[in-house]
Amino acid sequence: MNASTYSSRRNHLREAVGDGAILFIGQDEAPRNYPANPYPFRQDSHFLYYVGTNLPGMAILIFPDGKVTMYGPGEDPDDLIWHGPHPVLEDHARAAGIDRTAEFSALGETLSNLKTQGVTIRYLPPYRAEATLKLTLLLGVPWFELAGGACRDLAVAVVEQRSIKTDEEVAEMERALAVSKEMYAQALGMIKPGILEADVAGAMQGIALRHDMPQSFLPIVSVRGEVLHNNTYTNVLKDGDLLLVDSGVEAPPGFYASDITRTFPVSGEYTDKQKGIYQIVLDMQINAIAAANPRVSNRDIHFIAARTAVEGLKGLGLMKGDVDRAVEAGAHALFFPHGLGHMIGGDVHDMEDLGDLVGYPRGDQRSKQFGLSFLRLAKKLRPGFVITVEPGIYFVPALIERWKGEGKNTDFIDFNEVEKYIGFGGVRIEDDLLITENGSRVLGDGIPKTIEDVEAAMAR
Amino acid sequence: MNASTYSSRRNHLREAVGDGAILFIGQDEAPRNYPANPYPFRQDSHFLYYVGTNLPGMAILIFPDGKVTMYGPGEDPDDLIWHGPHPVLEDHARAAGIDRTAEFSALGETLSNLKTQGVTIRYLPPYRAEATLKLTLLLGVPWFELAGGACRDLAVAVVEQRSIKTDEEVAEMERALAVSKEMYAQALGMIKPGILEADVAGAMQGIALRHDMPQSFLPIVSVRGEVLHNNTYTNVLKDGDLLLVDSGVEAPPGFYASDITRTFPVSGEYTDKQKGIYQIVLDMQINAIAAANPRVSNRDIHFIAARTAVEGLKGLGLMKGDVDRAVEAGAHALFFPHGLGHMIGGDVHDMEDLGDLVGYPRGDQRSKQFGLSFLRLAKKLRPGFVITVEPGIYFVPALIERWKGEGKNTDFIDFNEVEKYIGFGGVRIEDDLLITENGSRVLGDGIPKTIEDVEAAMAR
Repeated sequence: MNASTYSSRRNHLREAVGDGAILFIGQDEAPRNYPANPYPFRQDSHFLYYVGTNLPGMAILIFPDGKVTMYGPGEDPDDLIWHGPHPVLEDHARAAGIDRTAEFSALGETLSNLKTQGVTIRYLPPYRAEATLKLTLLLGVPWFELAGGACRDLAVAVVEQRSIKTDEEVAEMERALAVSKEMYAQALGMIKPGILEADVAGAMQGIALRHDMPQSFLPIVSVRGEVLHNNTYTNVLKDGDLLLVDSGVEAPPGFYASDITRTFPVSGEYTDKQKGIYQIVLDMQINAIAAANPRVSNRDIHFIAARTAVEGLKGLGLMKGDVDRAVEAGAHALFFPHGLGHMIGGDVHDMEDLGDLVGYPRGDQRSKQFGLSFLRLAKKLRPGFVITVEPGIYFVPALIERWKGEGKNTDFIDFNEVEKYIGFGGVRIEDDLLITENGSRVLGDGIPKTIEDVEAAMAR
Repeated sequence: MNASTYSSRRNHLREAVGDGAILFIGQDEAPRNYPANPYPFRQDSHFLYYVGTNLPGMAILIFPDGKVTMYGPGEDPDDLIWHGPHPVLEDHARAAGIDRTAEFSALGETLSNLKTQGVTIRYLPPYRAEATLKLTLLLGVPWFELAGGACRDLAVAVVEQRSIKTDEEVAEMERALAVSKEMYAQALGMIKPGILEADVAGAMQGIALRHDMPQSFLPIVSVRGEVLHNNTYTNVLKDGDLLLVDSGVEAPPGFYASDITRTFPVSGEYTDKQKGIYQIVLDMQINAIAAANPRVSNRDIHFIAARTAVEGLKGLGLMKGDVDRAVEAGAHALFFPHGLGHMIGGDVHDMEDLGDLVGYPRGDQRSKQFGLSFLRLAKKLRPGFVITVEPGIYFVPALIERWKGEGKNTDFIDFNEVEKYIGFGGVRIEDDLLITENGSRVLGDGIPKTIEDVEAAMAR
C-alpha cells in the first residue's frame, strides 16, 4: 500500500466520525515465558489498516481538524548496534502519509490537553491486557472502565469501512491463498497411513515460514474432525481415517488472511460411506456459494446449506420429515452445529475484536438456537465483502447421546441410523468468497475439493 | 514427572518460605489479533515446575500448614462436545499430587479470608499484563502496586530450588537437544547459495513441530550475524556468507529448553579469513568449558573466553598490548559485546522473569562496563547448574566507527586492521553445559562444531 491509501482511509474515517480525536494504539510485544522472550510480533489489524507500520510501541492520533501525529519509541543510539541500520520514526510516518511525529512519551500530555479543551478521545475497546494498561495510563481512566469508555460510533465506522475490500486488499488475500495452495499440495503429497498429524502440520508450517507468512491461526490438522476445537497433532494417521486440515496464512504488508479447510482420505481414496457424507458437505458449499450475492444475507445462505444437509442426510436415512420444518427446528445442527462462515480480511475472523457489530446489523441479534447461535455473520451481503463458506458435517458422540437421551428432534432424526456413524469423525470444506456486484467469486484457485480431484491429487 | 515429584518440590518450597500462603497463577491464553485467536499456549515455567498442569486459567494456593488447593475453570457440559473427552480438574490435581480442588472463582474469597486472618499472600511479580489484571482482582491491590508487593523471599527460594537441575530435568533438556540435532542436520544438508534464510528457518521449524516441540524462542537464522537481535529471514544466502543459526526447542511435559548456535559457511567451506575468526571463537568456547567447575564463577569463565579472544585477535593483528589489561579495560567487547551465557532450564533464559536474582548473588551486581553489563550470570557455578556457553566475535560497523571516533581502547585495538573486517559478519558457537561435582558435561551430542566436522557434514 502506498502512503496515499493510508491517508485516504484516515480521511474517510475522520469524516465518518464527526468530532473528537481518534486514537489508535498499536500492539506491544506479547511476553511468552518472560518479558524478553516475546511471541512473534502481530500488529493490531486496525493499526495496519489505517497506518501500516508493523512495529511495537506505536500510536497515532487523528485530531479534530484531521491532522495526524504518529507516536513511537525514541531512537536509542545503541539501536544501530543491536538492530543494524533501520528506518526511524520519521520514515515510518512518511510511509503512512503522516507528516508529524512525536515520542510516545509525549502522547499522554497531548491527550490530557485535548480533554481539558473538551475534546472527546475516541478509541476502540482494547483486547490485550497490555493495551488496557497502556490506555489506563494514557487516558487516566481506571482499567475496568476502559472497555465501557470505548467509542461505539468509531467501531461502527471502522466496521463499515473495513468490511468492503478493495482490489488491493483482495490481491493480498490471493497472495495468502497462493501459499495456502502450496501448503495443501504438500499435505496431499505426504498424507499416508503411519505418519503423524504433526508431520503434516510441521511440513505445512515450514512452507508458510519459507514465504515469510505467519499462520493466521493455530491450524487444525486432525483425524478427529468432529472435535471442533483441536490444536494437538499427536494422532497417527490410519487407513480409513479422514484428515481434516483447517489452516491459513497472512500476507504482508497488510497481513490479510487466507482460511481454507479440506478433508482428505488418509488411504488416498474415500470409502463409500465417506463419499456419501463428503458429497453432502460439498453440495452444501456449492449451493451456498451459488446463492451468494448482494441481494441475500449470510443468514439466508447459511439456511441454504442447512437445507442441503437435511436433504442429503434424508437420502442416507439419517434424517426424515419435512426439510423446511427440520431446518426451522434446528435439527440439522446435530450434524452441522456451527455457522456457515465469517468475514475475513485483515483478521481471519475479520474485526472479531469488535464483537457482533461486525456480523449483525443494528436491531438484529444472534439466535439462541443451538447451532444458529454460532453464526458469526448474519448481515446482508454487499459487494466487497469477503466471507468464508465452510459447511461441515460431524458425528459428535457426546452430542448424539445427549439429543437421543433428551428425545430431541426425533421427528427429524433417526438416531438408530445416526449411531452407525459414531466414529466416522467429521468433514468440513472451506473457501474464501468475494461478493461481487452480481454474485460472487471464489478467491484463490485450484486447491482440490471434489472427490475426483482429491483422489487424483493423492494418486501416486 | 510423577505426582510425588511435584509434591516434594512444593514441600521443599513451603519449608524454605517460612510463613504466609504461597500463590502461583498459571498463564492465560495470550490474544494475538483478537481474543479468540490466541498465540500457542505457553504455561508459566514456575507453574510447570511446581504443578505441571499445561492448561490456561489455573492457580494453586499453598496454605501456611502446607495443604494445597488447585483452582481451575469449572467444567461446562458443552466442553465434551467442542473439545472431546478430556481430563477434568480433579484429574489434573491428582497428576500434580494435590487432593483439593475448587473453581477459580472461589480463589478471591479464600485469599480475602486469609488476609483477614493476617496471613501474608506471597506471589511472584507478574510479567504478563493478563496476570497483572488477574492478580489485581484477586488481591484487591491496584495494578501499579503489584510488582512492588511481590515477595522477594519467595523469588529467592524459587531461584535456589530451580537453579539445581535433577537428572529428570537434564534428561528432558537432552530430549530437546536431540531434536535440535535433527534441526541442525537439516540445516547442514540444505544450506547453499541462492536459497533464503527463511528456507532454512522454515525447514527447521517444521522438524520442531513434527516432534510436537515449540521453539524456545524466535530463532535467529541470519547471514548478518553481527546484527545480534535479528528475527527476519529475508536475505538470500550467497557464496562467501556465514549463516548464523541460533535456535532451540522445548521438550514436554516440563518444556525444558535447548539453546544451540552454530555458524555455517554458505559455500560449504570456510574461507581462510573466516577460519581465523571461527577458530578463535571455538577456542573461547573450549577454554571456557574446560575451566567450568564448581570452584569458579560464571564471571571467571566469561573472562577466560575474553582472554582467549584477545590472544587470538592479537595473533591476527586486530588487537595488541597486554592481554589482561585489555580484558580489564573491556577492549575485547568491541568484538565480543555480550555475556558468555545464561542459566537454561524451564526457560531458555531460566527464570529471567525474576531478574538479576537469578544470575547475581546478593551483594553483587552487574558491571556498568560495556559488554560485561550484558553478562546475565555471574554467580559461582554449582553442581546441577545448566548454563549456555556461547562466545562470539562480530564486526559491527556502527560500533567500530563509534569506538574509532572516540579513540576508545586504541592501546589495544588496531582500528586500521579491524576495518578490513567490516562486512565479515559474525560468528557465535553455543552449547548447553551441565556443571557436575568435578567439572562439567556438554549436554546433547554431536552437532558439528569444529571446522573439519562442519565442512565434512556439508560435503555432498
